[in-house]
Amino acid sequence: MASDQKPADLETETTKAVEEPPRPPKSTSLDKCVTVDVVLRVVLFAATLTSLLVLVYQQSVKAPPRHRLSLRRRGGGQVQSLARFHLSCRYLAAAASVTCLYSIITILASISVLLKPAFNTSFLIFFAIWDVVILGVMASATGAAGAVAYIGLKGNRHTNWAKVCNVYDKFCQHLAGSIAVALFASIVLVFLIVLSVLSLHKKIPK
Amino acid sequence: MASDQKPADLETETTKAVEEPPRPPKSTSLDKCVTVDVVLRVVLFAATLTSLLVLVYQQSVKAPPRHRLSLRRRGGGQVQSLARFHLSCRYLAAAASVTCLYSIITILASISVLLKPAFNTSFLIFFAIWDVVILGVMASATGAAGAVAYIGLKGNRHTNWAKVCNVYDKFCQHLAGSIAVALFASIVLVFLIVLSVLSLHKKIPK
Repeated sequence: MASDQKPADLETETTKAVEEPPRPPKSTSLDKCVTVDVVLRVVLFAATLTSLLVLVYQQSVKAPPRHRLSLRRRGGGQVQSLARFHLSCRYLAAAASVTCLYSIITILASISVLLKPAFNTSFLIFFAIWDVVILGVMASATGAAGAVAYIGLKGNRHTNWAKVCNVYDKFCQHLAGSIAVALFASIVLVFLIVLSVLSLHKKIPK
Repeated sequence: MASDQKPADLETETTKAVEEPPRPPKSTSLDKCVTVDVVLRVVLFAATLTSLLVLVYQQSVKAPPRHRLSLRRRGGGQVQSLARFHLSCRYLAAAASVTCLYSIITILASISVLLKPAFNTSFLIFFAIWDVVILGVMASATGAAGAVAYIGLKGNRHTNWAKVCNVYDKFCQHLAGSIAVALFASIVLVFLIVLSVLSLHKKIPK
């Protein structure tokens, strides 16, 4: 009986070894990287959506299109000025929209990488390159909106550029919030690129 | 004699084989990448230095410090306004200075990588991460200066932000040139990061 059991035990052990091959530690750490990537991309999505919604919300609350038009016809200078101030922040709204859409696409792509790790390297290259382009757009839009908002807040008495924020305090608070969130999104993008670079580095044999 | 010559020939061949081992194609392509990297960094240095010099030059020509001070005491509004307009572009000057200094350091580092390819991977990681940070700074500075210059060029009649460029035409031309070169530097930084990522990708075994 004892001699019969031995081959059976060996067989079971062999089957176990075939069924559960020991996973290399590298792929586990890469899985962790992809998980962090997904989390950061969700944060990026939330940040850009918040920035966009705050910009759109304040525009709709302060000066709805019809009201703006009727006031324009009557010569309503103040509401027009607000709308005009908004125009200079259109670039930020456009950049936030593009980044938001991009983050949705890359969240789905990252999840697909988690499910099928074979495409990992191709996606890492794709992510790293496009993240850099999106970072450039977001950073410049944040800088542009920040500069205009600063003039709106402080004015410039030498060039006779008047303050706007002492009249539209809530508008400026919203705008500042939107810019702060956009800046946060840019920093998240920097972290995402660094993560992609480090993930690529992990794949290089030492 | 013929039998004596044969071992001598063999020895020469063996020595040749030891002296000149066939170089793998990968390292050649990586050398090319490092060469392109050095060239791009030299272009980056030239672009940021040009941007910085144009900003500093126009400031010194238009309003030298003593003249500015004396006019300020007398209440010289126009020259003050120019100086004030400059202040809003200080961020671009600071960003260009930092990028210029950074490009010098990385040119030297890239040349050292060409001489000692053993440090290649470590430098690629270093370059990629710092390039991303510098790109964020340069892009936001370009955006900020561009936004302020646009207000200076077009004005904003609704917020009573007057044009400045119809008075200081040469100043605005210089500023536009400086911003254009800064934008070019940002694009060069994008290419540098993409190059680093692709170089890392080449080192991954397929």
